[in-house]
Amino acid sequence: MILTVTLNAALDLTYRTSSLVPYATHRVAEVVERPGGKGVNVARVLSALGHSTVVTGFLGGRTGEDIRELLARLSPRVVDAFVPVAEVSRRTVAVTDERGGDTTQFNEPGPLVSADEWRAFTEAYEGLLDGADAVALCGSLPPGVHVGAYAELVRRARAAGVPVLLDTSGEPLRRGVPPRPDLVKPNAEELALLTGAREPLRAAGDARRRGARSVVASLGPEGLLAVTPEGTWRARPPAAARGNPTGAGDSAVAGLLSGLVEDLPWPARLGRAVALSTATVLASAAGEFDPVSYDELLPRVAITETT
Amino acid sequence: MILTVTLNAALDLTYRTSSLVPYATHRVAEVVERPGGKGVNVARVLSALGHSTVVTGFLGGRTGEDIRELLARLSPRVVDAFVPVAEVSRRTVAVTDERGGDTTQFNEPGPLVSADEWRAFTEAYEGLLDGADAVALCGSLPPGVHVGAYAELVRRARAAGVPVLLDTSGEPLRRGVPPRPDLVKPNAEELALLTGAREPLRAAGDARRRGARSVVASLGPEGLLAVTPEGTWRARPPAAARGNPTGAGDSAVAGLLSGLVEDLPWPARLGRAVALSTATVLASAAGEFDPVSYDELLPRVAITETT
Repeated sequence: MILTVTLNAALDLTYRTSSLVPYATHRVAEVVERPGGKGVNVARVLSALGHSTVVTGFLGGRTGEDIRELLARLSPRVVDAFVPVAEVSRRTVAVTDERGGDTTQFNEPGPLVSADEWRAFTEAYEGLLDGADAVALCGSLPPGVHVGAYAELVRRARAAGVPVLLDTSGEPLRRGVPPRPDLVKPNAEELALLTGAREPLRAAGDARRRGARSVVASLGPEGLLAVTPEGTWRARPPAAARGNPTGAGDSAVAGLLSGLVEDLPWPARLGRAVALSTATVLASAAGEFDPVSYDELLPRVAITETT
Repeated sequence: MILTVTLNAALDLTYRTSSLVPYATHRVAEVVERPGGKGVNVARVLSALGHSTVVTGFLGGRTGEDIRELLARLSPRVVDAFVPVAEVSRRTVAVTDERGGDTTQFNEPGPLVSADEWRAFTEAYEGLLDGADAVALCGSLPPGVHVGAYAELVRRARAAGVPVLLDTSGEPLRRGVPPRPDLVKPNAEELALLTGAREPLRAAGDARRRGARSVVASLGPEGLLAVTPEGTWRARPPAAARGNPTGAGDSAVAGLLSGLVEDLPWPARLGRAVALSTATVLASAAGEFDPVSYDELLPRVAITETT
């Protein structure tokens, strides 16, 4: 079982409109509702790859119930182990233009989590680590959760002997690296903010020195850069994909995590991650991946070892 | 008791952001949730004026339950008599800029109402008319409801001897006028679309010839124009109000309707309607009215009879 943690889970709403005009009234032609937050997206892709997953984090209020209902319909391979919280979970609204893949995004802040609720979560997390082959810690922190939360969760995973992937940004990432996560997956900008170095190879090396065992940096349409104890690789998609990049990073995390628990060598993990994220950009629905594109892309990802 | 009908009720979300940038990601600083739809807004203002109200229309799905919960918290003078529908009620999202009162609005389409559900509603409506002193039919029609729906509801109200106010637009308004509603409250643009005449006084006269007993046209910051069998009046606010005009029209409807059941003369009804809608523009929260401003404005509305 792979455990994914989404502390600030969301009800993701996608609104299709003809075009976005500031200060105008828009008729929404179509509404799509999905359970969201990065860890939930990762679990959805993992389940499509055949992995059993457990999703945890906080859910609260009426929006929390909405998310639970939608989770229950996802797949029998996604098990809901979210911990209740008194305040209400957030929504996100993504407004898509019919003209193209561009979206305008509105993210509610999320529930204020109390110290008692955080304690209840860490106890549940300890229990879930027991049966986990790996754990992914994903996304932003809701209000009230202390900024060292991911550092604490990395430490507990390492104490339990469970490989841990950290995918967050800013101060929670900076504090999460010294406790030695097995893998961090920042994008180039997050990596530069973390280390002060703009050049990804150099910045990734710096992040490893700060504590990350391996660093996989996403370079957008350029693919991935992996700096690991086993070697350094670049993995590039066969051609630049046009479409909606929403969820592409979460699909890459699912590719890396599934490769880790299947004990694949790094080039195979990176090939899977790049093919999945490219197939997500190409999918018609935001955050889904197109399985036909995935199968077609997988053997065509260009992987080169560098030194 | 005053009955208000909101066929396409909504969960109104207001998102406060620093500024709206198309194709960017926005952190929402504050979320306000309210039960919405024009008839619900009218009932809220009527209840603040001391009137007992019953709200009806359709509510469905999880959003419908959210709306019911929020309705229950409004006021003991607002009684929920909404009829259940299988599909899910809509949300609206109003994004407000911190820079000013300008809002960008996204309206979901609403539930597809079946013929059986429409029949169930008209039966409930007949029962509610029994105890009603007046009825207001407000807002857009949800998908599936026939375009002559308001014409049918006007006819039933008149058969029951209950004064009926119609506040809608487009084809539902055009079809609702011939069955002789007691009052229609279009804005200048809706009135021009209905009649083909651009000049409000002429257009209002035309709308009366088509069937409306009285016409009160809202002229935005210029106030109201009333063309009635008892006379013709203009009512102007003492000064142009700056603020958020959301809900100002619904407050005017509440003013007119309360004046009607209290049997006030037209000038008093119009003064109340203008003071309420101006106090709504001045309120800090969208759709609320500021009671202090209302009391202050009420004696200062300029009402002139014209011929």
